[in-house]
Amino acid sequence: MVHKVAVIGAGISGLTSIKACLDEGLEPTCFESSHDIGGLWRFKEKPEPGLANIYQSVVINSSKEMMSLSDFPPPAELPNNMHHSEVLLYMRLYAQAFKLLQHIHFKTTVVSVRQTPDFAATGQWEVETEGREGPRETRVFDAVMVCTGHYTQPHLPLSDFPGVETFKGRYFHSWEYRNTEGLQGKRVVVIGIGNSGGDIAVDISRVAQKVYLSTRSGAWVVGRVGQRGLPADLVGTSRMDMMKQKLFPSWINRMVEKKLDEAFDHTLYGLKPKHGFFEQIPVVNDDLPARIISGRVQVKPNVKEFRGSSVVFADGSIIDKVDVVVFATGYNYSFPFLPPALQAKSGYRLRLYKHVFPPALTQPTLAVVGFIHGFGAINPLAEMQARWATRVFKGFTTLPSEETMMKEIEKDTVTMHLRYACSERNPLQVDYIPYLDSLAEQVGVRPNILWLFLKDPRLAVEVLLGPCTPYQYRLTGPGQWAGARQAILTQWERVRQPFRTRVVPKPETRASSSRRVIVVISGSVLLCCIYYNKHLLSSSLLRHSSDLLNTLHDYVHL
Amino acid sequence: MVHKVAVIGAGISGLTSIKACLDEGLEPTCFESSHDIGGLWRFKEKPEPGLANIYQSVVINSSKEMMSLSDFPPPAELPNNMHHSEVLLYMRLYAQAFKLLQHIHFKTTVVSVRQTPDFAATGQWEVETEGREGPRETRVFDAVMVCTGHYTQPHLPLSDFPGVETFKGRYFHSWEYRNTEGLQGKRVVVIGIGNSGGDIAVDISRVAQKVYLSTRSGAWVVGRVGQRGLPADLVGTSRMDMMKQKLFPSWINRMVEKKLDEAFDHTLYGLKPKHGFFEQIPVVNDDLPARIISGRVQVKPNVKEFRGSSVVFADGSIIDKVDVVVFATGYNYSFPFLPPALQAKSGYRLRLYKHVFPPALTQPTLAVVGFIHGFGAINPLAEMQARWATRVFKGFTTLPSEETMMKEIEKDTVTMHLRYACSERNPLQVDYIPYLDSLAEQVGVRPNILWLFLKDPRLAVEVLLGPCTPYQYRLTGPGQWAGARQAILTQWERVRQPFRTRVVPKPETRASSSRRVIVVISGSVLLCCIYYNKHLLSSSLLRHSSDLLNTLHDYVHL
Repeated sequence: MVHKVAVIGAGISGLTSIKACLDEGLEPTCFESSHDIGGLWRFKEKPEPGLANIYQSVVINSSKEMMSLSDFPPPAELPNNMHHSEVLLYMRLYAQAFKLLQHIHFKTTVVSVRQTPDFAATGQWEVETEGREGPRETRVFDAVMVCTGHYTQPHLPLSDFPGVETFKGRYFHSWEYRNTEGLQGKRVVVIGIGNSGGDIAVDISRVAQKVYLSTRSGAWVVGRVGQRGLPADLVGTSRMDMMKQKLFPSWINRMVEKKLDEAFDHTLYGLKPKHGFFEQIPVVNDDLPARIISGRVQVKPNVKEFRGSSVVFADGSIIDKVDVVVFATGYNYSFPFLPPALQAKSGYRLRLYKHVFPPALTQPTLAVVGFIHGFGAINPLAEMQARWATRVFKGFTTLPSEETMMKEIEKDTVTMHLRYACSERNPLQVDYIPYLDSLAEQVGVRPNILWLFLKDPRLAVEVLLGPCTPYQYRLTGPGQWAGARQAILTQWERVRQPFRTRVVPKPETRASSSRRVIVVISGSVLLCCIYYNKHLLSSSLLRHSSDLLNTLHDYVHL
Repeated sequence: MVHKVAVIGAGISGLTSIKACLDEGLEPTCFESSHDIGGLWRFKEKPEPGLANIYQSVVINSSKEMMSLSDFPPPAELPNNMHHSEVLLYMRLYAQAFKLLQHIHFKTTVVSVRQTPDFAATGQWEVETEGREGPRETRVFDAVMVCTGHYTQPHLPLSDFPGVETFKGRYFHSWEYRNTEGLQGKRVVVIGIGNSGGDIAVDISRVAQKVYLSTRSGAWVVGRVGQRGLPADLVGTSRMDMMKQKLFPSWINRMVEKKLDEAFDHTLYGLKPKHGFFEQIPVVNDDLPARIISGRVQVKPNVKEFRGSSVVFADGSIIDKVDVVVFATGYNYSFPFLPPALQAKSGYRLRLYKHVFPPALTQPTLAVVGFIHGFGAINPLAEMQARWATRVFKGFTTLPSEETMMKEIEKDTVTMHLRYACSERNPLQVDYIPYLDSLAEQVGVRPNILWLFLKDPRLAVEVLLGPCTPYQYRLTGPGQWAGARQAILTQWERVRQPFRTRVVPKPETRASSSRRVIVVISGSVLLCCIYYNKHLLSSSLLRHSSDLLNTLHDYVHL
């Protein structure tokens, strides 16, 4: 029977894992090598080896409702796309609310995780740790949750760049980037157009003489600011949208690409990738187009070679007098403390059942949490993995046989490789909602929408047509949260709240009398409909009606 | 007979005035108080009193084809929206190409401009100058062109902000702003949402703890990146668009506002102004929406008062611990060297006939150039004013009687006050193309589009439907330039050129056979049309056809 669980790392995955343990009555002990929680989201003045590091200007790509932990909506006042300091604040509030800190051993590095001799019977692990000041220590745990993330090992492929040893300037990996200090007036080449590459190029371009952003394969670029200024990831990401995408994948893909090209033509801007929009996580960057049109950032092809201070690109063009090169070339992943057998691969991916459990273990007492990517925030994915893992530890949910798991992993790898432009640097793709649902199914918290339509149509409409926010997985089943319904019904309110820093006075209406007549007639028709069907109408429809009624009210009282 | 002309200032207005003098066989002598050309566009490490100053990150709002001087298209390689260093480079190239530098006396300030005793007969002026090292000097000129701009006298309305004397932090006018140095981690309030206010708020927000952008009346915000990534001011700014706007002003206004609200809802973002889009020059800012959604910039209402380190806003909200306040409160204008009689006002505006000539002078030998604002770049406006002024100096064009001019100024003031949200800070609005055309008419260089359709339909289409670039005013008449036609026909080429830093390989087409059939049929029909009508078809249509033919070609050769 699992009781004591070691959680490795106190980033978001670690925190939500501690919380999941507590929810299941388990006893978590978390080991965090640094002195504080936050992982990636705790900004460090100097990059600390072995830890994830971010730069000073980082703003999270996901909006707060989408990156929320399912039973802890972020305070309404926080902005929709938080600065890293606010993400950390949110994590602190979460840790405080659920009393997580007392389970964390700071400044304690996990050196090794080994199966106990009687593992086959007990499923137990020997976890060896090393405190900064203290001696090594070994403790036995019934289960282990690995929450060390995947931005800790910078990938610096110098051997791919002939002549780099002749380069006279300064170069470093994006992992080391902090801010623009020392880059004023410099000529900078940024290699790689992942999210870091795009962000760093834009950041530096505000002070540099010129920034060249080199990309082998281009990228689709989306903004955080979506339609009508709403967070982009809240629009077009509902369950209904997912269904449409499943039914008409290439049509939806074309629609999205067309829309993105309307914002700025990716071919004209030298960014259009070969892969379709849904085949790779896009680059989230609101500023890049304007930096390109103003020439502050120049898009360049792949770097072919270095020649002293010159950089030669694949198209033969040469940029001279380069002062600085930033390698935004992604990350490797490794779990140095784990037995090698648990680090086998399937394609580019780690061989893990549903990205969590190594299938070869005779006892399912080791889970990897948050080692994943999808078209959405990592937090809800990690949280759901943690909830599932703890349910498995407790024996409430069982895993299939090793053979079945292996088969499923292989099948899954093939499917994902077909669907996504996977690579060594992008191995971790999942279909966002389907993946969440598949784990939720295991946990027993997947919302049953048909049933919901009968029971609570207002909520059902929002669950089906609204953004698929994590609160949906707290409506029923284990870990059910009484506030979930309200959290879903008020999510748009929390989206609007941070904008209310200057309230625009209501405009004087200037409708012509004919328009007024139309509004009055349609309003009356609507009123009748509402009167006769009010018990059938969903809340969302009601809300739209009430907007219309408000408009009507404005016109009638002119 | 005018021969010797004093030009005061060597910014863009001064340079184009020297050029206009030379074109008309006049002898210009330019006095520039600093050591270099460029005016506003020459970045100074420290703000220099009496000069216009810009900040380090400034990128010009207008695209290069719209801000071009009419017989000197910017090099194709320059970005569409140039950094200030590139604008200065362009000015240097212009000065070099037309040998303007030899006419400029640097480090020479104009102290006074006075009519000579025999002004009524000669129209001459005594211009007193002071060199930095030399003694004062007075010279007589036949005419004077005042090109001193309107960003030299910061307007710092401290008395409008009760309690400002109790404010414990640092405050300064946007004129003093250079870069983010010293603002790291600070809490900053920026007052005023003109272009400077918006830019500076965004700039500082990259390093500050928080930026609060206070605005009394809000603003429409447009990006430099327009539809499909083309420069926004090249789209929807043709003569045809102007006609549509004249015919259906409120419909076009609604359309534009709707489009802007689709990008981000100005009401939600707290920015929606009371005035319509076309009533005031919009704020050009590509980054502001993303800074607002991420909470790095918070929009606030007008500042009511200061209380120590706290700032109280009109809605009663208070921001504490403010470190820095930036007053982006605009500029005053003054011409200290001119006789007061020439600085009379009409409404908020200087009383100048067509913004150039003081009507009360018995001889039209003093012109103000570049003291103007419109929905477009100032350069073409200033250039056209200079061309007109020099034609008037030469006597080729005469001005109406003083009475007529006065009447027209008053009428114009009323019209502009009705049409635009004019104020003391925004007094200089003109209708862009109509104003240019009205001066061009005087100079004799207004393009006759009907005649052009008969003579050169390809060109006519581009002049009517393409962006109204300044080359149009070099097609005929005095100052005609042989390269104008070609400059117009190749303007889109120059727009695309700077993007060609990474060429995206042509995609593999994946058309279904049915789509191919449709393309083949429509292509054939088109081919027939082209064959039978090729002499009637405009170049623009031909260009579109050729795009279609290229597509057809791709499909047929699959």
